[in-house]
Amino acid sequence: MSEAHAQDGPRLRDLSEEDLLDRIFPYFVQREDVLVPPGDDAAVLRAASGSVVATTDTMVLGHDWRDEWSTPAEVGSKLVTQNVADIAAMGARPTGLLVTLAAHGDLPARWAEEFSQGVASQAERYDVSVVGGDLSGAPDGVVMVSITALGDLEGRDPVLRSGARVGDVLAVHGSLGWSGAGWWLYAQGETDPGSPRPYPTGAEPPPGWHEQSARSVLMWFHRTPVTAVSSGVVASLAGATAMMDVSDGLVRDAGRIARASRVRIDLDRTNLERDFVDPPLTDVLPLDVAWSQVLTGGEEHSLLATFPADSPLLRDQSDPDGRWWVVGRVVEADDARPRVTLDGEAIQGQGWDHFAG
Amino acid sequence: MSEAHAQDGPRLRDLSEEDLLDRIFPYFVQREDVLVPPGDDAAVLRAASGSVVATTDTMVLGHDWRDEWSTPAEVGSKLVTQNVADIAAMGARPTGLLVTLAAHGDLPARWAEEFSQGVASQAERYDVSVVGGDLSGAPDGVVMVSITALGDLEGRDPVLRSGARVGDVLAVHGSLGWSGAGWWLYAQGETDPGSPRPYPTGAEPPPGWHEQSARSVLMWFHRTPVTAVSSGVVASLAGATAMMDVSDGLVRDAGRIARASRVRIDLDRTNLERDFVDPPLTDVLPLDVAWSQVLTGGEEHSLLATFPADSPLLRDQSDPDGRWWVVGRVVEADDARPRVTLDGEAIQGQGWDHFAG
Repeated sequence: MSEAHAQDGPRLRDLSEEDLLDRIFPYFVQREDVLVPPGDDAAVLRAASGSVVATTDTMVLGHDWRDEWSTPAEVGSKLVTQNVADIAAMGARPTGLLVTLAAHGDLPARWAEEFSQGVASQAERYDVSVVGGDLSGAPDGVVMVSITALGDLEGRDPVLRSGARVGDVLAVHGSLGWSGAGWWLYAQGETDPGSPRPYPTGAEPPPGWHEQSARSVLMWFHRTPVTAVSSGVVASLAGATAMMDVSDGLVRDAGRIARASRVRIDLDRTNLERDFVDPPLTDVLPLDVAWSQVLTGGEEHSLLATFPADSPLLRDQSDPDGRWWVVGRVVEADDARPRVTLDGEAIQGQGWDHFAG
Repeated sequence: MSEAHAQDGPRLRDLSEEDLLDRIFPYFVQREDVLVPPGDDAAVLRAASGSVVATTDTMVLGHDWRDEWSTPAEVGSKLVTQNVADIAAMGARPTGLLVTLAAHGDLPARWAEEFSQGVASQAERYDVSVVGGDLSGAPDGVVMVSITALGDLEGRDPVLRSGARVGDVLAVHGSLGWSGAGWWLYAQGETDPGSPRPYPTGAEPPPGWHEQSARSVLMWFHRTPVTAVSSGVVASLAGATAMMDVSDGLVRDAGRIARASRVRIDLDRTNLERDFVDPPLTDVLPLDVAWSQVLTGGEEHSLLATFPADSPLLRDQSDPDGRWWVVGRVVEADDARPRVTLDGEAIQGQGWDHFAG
C-alpha cells in the first residue's frame, strides 16, 4: 500500500455498508439510459434496440496491479477502460457499469473512495453510468475489483470475431505496445519520472527531455490505458467485418479473429515498423523489446478490426477520434503456417495468459 | 480445501485460459434469449421490452463460504440463487448470467469444473443462460466468485422498494431463518448428518428421525438456498407495491422497504410464530434462536413484498409455486419508533453487515 494510503482514517471494517455507499454514490452520475438507478435490488437500463451487450472483467491486487505503482483512481480508471473496450469492440455504445469491490476490512475507506473517483471520471469520459455493484469482505490483504459493462447496439449488427474475409485488411485504432512497454520499464525497477516540464515553443528541449517524457507516457499508459469507444461505432458503420480490442497482444488477438474467421492474418512488417515501432517506444526501449511489445504487449485496449480493402474509412480517415492504421491483410488459411504471420513467416512469442503469467 | 479437492489432477496454473474454458463451456446451455453466445468480446442478449434489469453479487472463500462445509457445486448454486433473487425481486425474468472466477493457480481445475456444474444446474432451474464471464488469477489461497445477472421485465413496470403504501400488508414467499439456522448449527461445530433414510408410509419414524432430518435440511439450505423466480413475476402481476428478496434478514430488509417508502412496517408476532417459528427450525434450535433467525437470519432469498390488503393473490393463494404468508402491515411512519416494529414494539438486533460481520 502506498504511503498516501497508510495515513489515518476509517477502514472498511469501521463503516457499515450503507455508510460506505453514502461516500461512494455521489461520484456516480446517472445518465439518461438509466431507468432505475442504483439503490434497489437491481438497476434498470434502457435497451432501446431490443438487445443488450454484456461483458465482465476483473483486477486483483498483486496480480493485475501493484499499489506501489498505481493509485486507486488509476486502478478504477483502467478497469473501466478494459470493460468498455469490449463493448466498443462489438460496435456497441456502453450504457451501464456494475462495479464490485471485494476487500479486507483493513483497507482504508479512502482507497474505496479514490477507486470510485477513478471509475467515475473514466465513466464520464466514455459517457456511461454506474448503475450498480457489490461490496464484499475478503481475507487479509485481498483487494479485488470487477466490472460488468452493458451496451446498446442501437440497431446495428454486432461486429463479431468471425466475420473477417480473405482480401480484407487488418487495421488498428490507437497505439500498440505502450502498456506492455510501461510494464517492462516497471519490471526493470524504474519509477515514473512524472511528466517533464514543457519547454518554450521553438526552443530546443533540454537534454534527456524526450526520453524522460517517453518513459512517463509509457508508464502512465500502463497504469491507465484509454480506448476510443466511439471509434468502434464508426468502424461498425463503415463496414468492419470483424473487431476486437487488443487485450492480450496483437498477435494473440489477431489469432483469435483468424481462428474464428477460419483465415490467416499476415501482418505487414514495413507498416508496423513505420507506424508503431517508433517514439515514444523507441526513445527508451531497445529495438528488440519495442518490436516484442508491439507484437505481443497486452492491456492496450486499442481497437483491432478487419475491413474490406476498399473501405472509405481507411481511404478518407474520416474517424473524428483518430486514424486507423493498416497493419496486415487477411489471406487464405494454410495448414502449413500459423494463424498469424509476419510477412508470411511464423512469429516467436504469443501473449499474456492469466494463470501462468 | 476439502479432501475431495486435494486429490491429484491439473491445477489452474497447469492449464491455459482456453483449456480451462474448454472444460467449462460445455456445461452452459444457451437459451433463446441469447443472440451472441459466449466466446466473443461480449455477449448479446435479447431485451425485447426495451430495457434490461441488472444486478451483481460476489462470494469470497473464507468469508462467504468454507470449503469444509460447501462443495464447489453448492457455492456455484448459491451464487446463482443470490443473483436471480434480486432480478425476481424487481418482478423481472432472469435472462443471462456473467460468471467470474478469480483464483490462485494452485486451485484444482476440478474445483472450477464442479463450481461451473453447480452454476449450470441452478441456471437450468431458473431457466437462465450463462452468457459470459471472466477468469482471473489471484494471490495464494484466494478464491472469489462473482455473478452479474440480467433480466427482462417483459413490459411490466419494475417493483421497487419505494412503493409500499399505508394499509398494505407485508407477505413472504418461501422460508425465513433456515439459512441462518444452518449457519448457526455449523457455528456450533455440528456437521451435516446427511439426509436420513425415508421410512415406510404409515410407520412411525425411528427415534431422532425428525431432528436429524431438520438438521440436514437447515444445513443444506444454508449451503444452497433456493428462490422462486416465477413468484416475483406472479407478485408483480398481482399488484405488489414493493418487493425485495430476504438477503440480510427480515427486519433489515423490511426496514429498507420502509425507509424507501417512508412508512413503518409492523410485523405480526402471531403470524410469524404460527407460520415461521416452526419445524424444522424448532426441531433443533432453542426457541430464542429460532425467533432470532426468523427475524434476522440472512441469505434466505425468499421474496418479501407488500400488497394491497385486498389482493386476490393473498386471498386465493393462486401462485403455482407456493403461497404468500402475511407477516405484517404497512402503517404510518412515526418519529418515536423505528422503521420496523413487532406488534408495535422495537426489535433487538439487526442483520448482517459485510465488513463488520
